[in-house]
Amino acid sequence: MSDNTTVAELRRVAVIGLGSMGSGMATALLNAGHAVTGFDVAAGAADHLVGKGLKKADTPARAVAEADIVVIVVVNAAQTESVLFGPGGLADALAPGAVVVSSATMNPEMARIMAQRLEAGDRHYLDAPMSGGAARAADGELTFMTSGSAVAQSKAHPALAAMGSKIYDLGEKPGDAAGFKMVNQLLAGVHIAAACEAMTFAARLGLDLRKTYDVITEAAGNSWMFEDRMPHVIDGDYTPRSSVDIFVKDLGIVQDMARSAKFPVPVAASALQMFLMASGSGMGGEDDASVARIYAQLSQVELPTRKT
Amino acid sequence: MSDNTTVAELRRVAVIGLGSMGSGMATALLNAGHAVTGFDVAAGAADHLVGKGLKKADTPARAVAEADIVVIVVVNAAQTESVLFGPGGLADALAPGAVVVSSATMNPEMARIMAQRLEAGDRHYLDAPMSGGAARAADGELTFMTSGSAVAQSKAHPALAAMGSKIYDLGEKPGDAAGFKMVNQLLAGVHIAAACEAMTFAARLGLDLRKTYDVITEAAGNSWMFEDRMPHVIDGDYTPRSSVDIFVKDLGIVQDMARSAKFPVPVAASALQMFLMASGSGMGGEDDASVARIYAQLSQVELPTRKT
Repeated sequence: MSDNTTVAELRRVAVIGLGSMGSGMATALLNAGHAVTGFDVAAGAADHLVGKGLKKADTPARAVAEADIVVIVVVNAAQTESVLFGPGGLADALAPGAVVVSSATMNPEMARIMAQRLEAGDRHYLDAPMSGGAARAADGELTFMTSGSAVAQSKAHPALAAMGSKIYDLGEKPGDAAGFKMVNQLLAGVHIAAACEAMTFAARLGLDLRKTYDVITEAAGNSWMFEDRMPHVIDGDYTPRSSVDIFVKDLGIVQDMARSAKFPVPVAASALQMFLMASGSGMGGEDDASVARIYAQLSQVELPTRKT
Repeated sequence: MSDNTTVAELRRVAVIGLGSMGSGMATALLNAGHAVTGFDVAAGAADHLVGKGLKKADTPARAVAEADIVVIVVVNAAQTESVLFGPGGLADALAPGAVVVSSATMNPEMARIMAQRLEAGDRHYLDAPMSGGAARAADGELTFMTSGSAVAQSKAHPALAAMGSKIYDLGEKPGDAAGFKMVNQLLAGVHIAAACEAMTFAARLGLDLRKTYDVITEAAGNSWMFEDRMPHVIDGDYTPRSSVDIFVKDLGIVQDMARSAKFPVPVAASALQMFLMASGSGMGGEDDASVARIYAQLSQVELPTRKT
């Protein structure tokens, strides 16, 4: 009815990594009308999306052969590097002018190096770590922190607009977005550990945990993580929404970055030790609120257990 | 116009401690129509309120001689103990049936002991730590965490309603409200130190601090303290709104409580060390965001300085 109708720009998008995040992002891309090809090392990954239009490829190179945009959503920098430049990697198979959207959380230095290497061959690299879980991924409601050239930003935009509801353009330098993400992870990890320390301390003092939650979430001691994670402790439900080992990894990257920059991070360092205690005790794959169970063990405090 | 008009119950209230918080609270009490008598060790404290109806007394005992409700808002447990039971203290001068509202942040054990001692003499004790700064005190917008007998709660209510906009009744046991407050202070202190660590780390990575603030306050790394304190760092303005030494004191109480309970608090312990570095460097009286200046010194990072 109007000449101003916005028509989505449809693209051929490849998604490398079809775990819970990657398959959610593929869903959002399909819902937006993009043509989506996917690859994962696990052959059966995201098979439920094939009926919805996902094409699957058996190597990263085949997945990206016709892609305008490649979204890499694997675990870390090493896997991203391998997908791009390893044997059967996609860097050479990628059409000149295509853009890679790199979403794994990583050391900014690694993002800079991969961007430089990829762009030397007339492809574009957007440093684009994200936040938000699998549910928000499938709804196209992720938050992206992005940095890279104006060309990379512009070429990646049709995919980012489908996958995210909030997209920060943080400048022209690949690595900067990774840096913002690591600053966020430093805080997020410390806040989870502090929430677990405080909540178990409240239990040790004999305080009611539900009241503690109600008071703290209205007070100056509140954090996004306290509000989000402490219901798991109150319910005694450690089904992983985000696992202990994610913060073993991410606070580990923070430590590595800080050490090479000769920057002391004593608070983040003490938080990392708590995640390591949880992981070392066998809880690495469980919910990150499991850090509270470590405090409970170390002080003989009883926390709530799950109602069955 | 209506028979249902609520008439405020007016009382004779004594305020012991007329610093920035105490004089704000006296203002709110006067505005609500209560008769207010005040005492402070500094003779000239809150003289600006005399024209608004504040009566001043020269000892705590004289201040409370005719009081229904006594609000004690001094620095710590030791001062509260001295005001109540020291030479010239008010415990004996207080009319039987009157209630003491004890608002200093303190070890729950101290609150329990003082409540027991006071109530043995037919006076009532309400454990009532608060949060919110001097501006909110004057507006009657503080948050109170309270615990004590039903009689103490009910007798204190007309004063609490004038001073606070949110009043949590946390049960019958004096000491429990102090416990909730300490759990909150553990988190608040850790979050300030973590915010300063993360923000200075962002500066070290060459990231724009205003963008860091914008991204983090919309992300999972956010905390009430990050949002509240980091503008001080961005503006380079360390005028004390709440000073470093408050958290040296409060995290110190947390450590003492945790140690006697054999409860490990490694994250709070590392945060306390940062406040001690700031205080030991001569910044004890400056804004608590000064912890960022310690991180900056220890890594040769330049943070913004105040525009003059």
